[in-house]
Amino acid sequence: MSLIVHKYGGTSVGSVERIKAVAEKIVAKHRAGDKIVVAVSAMSGETNRLIGLAKAIHEEPNLREMDVLVSTGEQVTIALLCMALEAAGVSARSYTGSQVRILTDDAHGKARIKEIDSHRIHSDLDAGRVVVVAGFQGADDAGNITTLGRGGSDTTAVALAAALKADECQIYTDVDGVYTTDPRVVADARRLDKITFEEMLEMASQGSKILQIRSVEFAGKYNVPLRVMSSFEDGPGTLISLEDDDQMEKPVVSGIAFNRDEAKLTIRGIPDQPGVAYKVLGAISEANIEIDVIVQNVAKDNSATITFTVHRNDLARASKLLEQIAADLGAEEVASDDRIVKVSIVGVGMRSHAGVAATMFEALAAEGINIQLITTSEIKITVVIEERYLELAVRSLHSAFGLEQ
Amino acid sequence: MSLIVHKYGGTSVGSVERIKAVAEKIVAKHRAGDKIVVAVSAMSGETNRLIGLAKAIHEEPNLREMDVLVSTGEQVTIALLCMALEAAGVSARSYTGSQVRILTDDAHGKARIKEIDSHRIHSDLDAGRVVVVAGFQGADDAGNITTLGRGGSDTTAVALAAALKADECQIYTDVDGVYTTDPRVVADARRLDKITFEEMLEMASQGSKILQIRSVEFAGKYNVPLRVMSSFEDGPGTLISLEDDDQMEKPVVSGIAFNRDEAKLTIRGIPDQPGVAYKVLGAISEANIEIDVIVQNVAKDNSATITFTVHRNDLARASKLLEQIAADLGAEEVASDDRIVKVSIVGVGMRSHAGVAATMFEALAAEGINIQLITTSEIKITVVIEERYLELAVRSLHSAFGLEQ
Repeated sequence: MSLIVHKYGGTSVGSVERIKAVAEKIVAKHRAGDKIVVAVSAMSGETNRLIGLAKAIHEEPNLREMDVLVSTGEQVTIALLCMALEAAGVSARSYTGSQVRILTDDAHGKARIKEIDSHRIHSDLDAGRVVVVAGFQGADDAGNITTLGRGGSDTTAVALAAALKADECQIYTDVDGVYTTDPRVVADARRLDKITFEEMLEMASQGSKILQIRSVEFAGKYNVPLRVMSSFEDGPGTLISLEDDDQMEKPVVSGIAFNRDEAKLTIRGIPDQPGVAYKVLGAISEANIEIDVIVQNVAKDNSATITFTVHRNDLARASKLLEQIAADLGAEEVASDDRIVKVSIVGVGMRSHAGVAATMFEALAAEGINIQLITTSEIKITVVIEERYLELAVRSLHSAFGLEQ
Repeated sequence: MSLIVHKYGGTSVGSVERIKAVAEKIVAKHRAGDKIVVAVSAMSGETNRLIGLAKAIHEEPNLREMDVLVSTGEQVTIALLCMALEAAGVSARSYTGSQVRILTDDAHGKARIKEIDSHRIHSDLDAGRVVVVAGFQGADDAGNITTLGRGGSDTTAVALAAALKADECQIYTDVDGVYTTDPRVVADARRLDKITFEEMLEMASQGSKILQIRSVEFAGKYNVPLRVMSSFEDGPGTLISLEDDDQMEKPVVSGIAFNRDEAKLTIRGIPDQPGVAYKVLGAISEANIEIDVIVQNVAKDNSATITFTVHRNDLARASKLLEQIAADLGAEEVASDDRIVKVSIVGVGMRSHAGVAATMFEALAAEGINIQLITTSEIKITVVIEERYLELAVRSLHSAFGLEQ
């Protein structure tokens, strides 16, 4: 008998009909002998409806009250799903985050889970019940309702799986697994049977939006096998787990991720002295602008050039700030470009294979694609290129690394 | 400095605009120096929307889950109202029933309050905050969410006032007070400045729907002065409190209540023996049919006649049951009539005034209205008459007891 945590997102429980369909899926697995704990999101659209009400009252609503408000979304889903399970003949019980209790810190809207009391859940499972837990929420020491931030239901599911020592955490989504790259860009993109936590983390942080980064980190930290599956079709999905040492032939590259949401900023001709990078990037970070790729080079004249990317929505603000910093430092020039994209190849096999970067650059060169920036990590190589070459680049890399096979 | 509990119903908080208006009202009173605790209902329509979702999943949804579901309605309101209070510059904090904690028994859907922990509320009030509490809900010993049944927000407000030893509990509604009778029936019906708990209880149980009966009982039991006021206009409303012994001139009759929702059943020619009333009415009660007026008479031949009223929705079922009982007892006849109404005059002054009944019967006789049943209590006389005479009866009684002055 396995203990499995399921997680269903907003689209999967977006209507009464879909909730009934989810209940049927759960009942079938329950009857097959699994002990099942389910984490659910709010019905799709509900969180936005609630935020809309709040914004109509106050531009910047009180964060504590915002959590009281939006946490009702998942509370509605847990009750409806339990009713549907009972209608299908399976005994079920719902718990809000506070009821479980999922103890978090008090950072409203972006709380972190500190501890989960698994006592009530275990005794319900032992009594033959399916347990349904509201995702995305918890309570702090004082009993105030907190939320983990949007998309936090994945994290709830993984944290529950870790606390309950579950055999697997299954994330049901609108896709049937993790693909080598976006099938909308590359027609012969292939579903991966397995991928490591590290690879998934790099894929996610590079723009693949199937799973929340925090939930993958969490799963890796507590070694919770994670499986991405379709809510609507049967299939094995993609298993995300620790690196499997028995696997003789590791693929060099597992997947290709890309991101169209970023813009590039460059500051040139700054004196190459210690502390310069901090002066430039510290000021940007302090303005709460998230910086992604960072590349620093030194020119012939010993002046430094720093290039970095930010979200396109932050470009105007970052650009203004950078002009000011440039004036303060006596830098030569500031340039910005929002017609760029980031493309990454990801694979644990890179660690033991030489020549991966060369293959990548060769494939791009063959298509006449100019590389503006390069950064590398142990299991990832990222390039920034002109936006119009995105599809061409992804397709040529997909084929260069044989991902369609 | 007074401690006042306010209660706003679903219509008063039915939209973002209304919530803002309620916040302004509260802020004005807070600035004037009152310590304020607010109990609120779900936004109008929300509870029905949630029930609709549940019914689409299961005809008879699990009661525990139903409470998890519908309790989100008030949770949305408390968050939005706190945001609106903060927007208006007043510090506020919301609490669900579980958070307060309002401890109830475990009768889901119709729970009764056992205890209220006033600790957190008092410390918030001392810190200058307005406290907003979700009406209609609590939690049982095990932390399961419970609801007090529909309209239970009035009860929450009164229970909070009792627990906090508040100076007054103000129920804000869509009417500006308690009237001598329904102004839609009698144009010169008059708002009452004061009324006693007992009178209000009789008015409520006779069909006046301004306040929930349980909340009035509760207020009387703990002697919490209750004031019915308008959410939309300023005004003193109607104060409901203990009988005021200083008041020299008590009005004989305070108000006239009526009820069009009942139907009458009669069983004739049953042997007048001990236990007969029980045999008849016990069987009806056991079928979960609520019985209101009961009258028993003995005819010349020593056979008994029992007449009673039930809700019109229960008439068919009650009638069928009664036929069976009549057969068992060897009774002569069963008759039913759903074209009747109940009209009551209510007033604590009746205790010390003779001739009130005579005045009532005289007024009805003068209009040619036949009285079918009469029952009396210490502060109330109820008659059942033909439905078509309802308006005429109420108007003539209103005038006969000088209520328009």
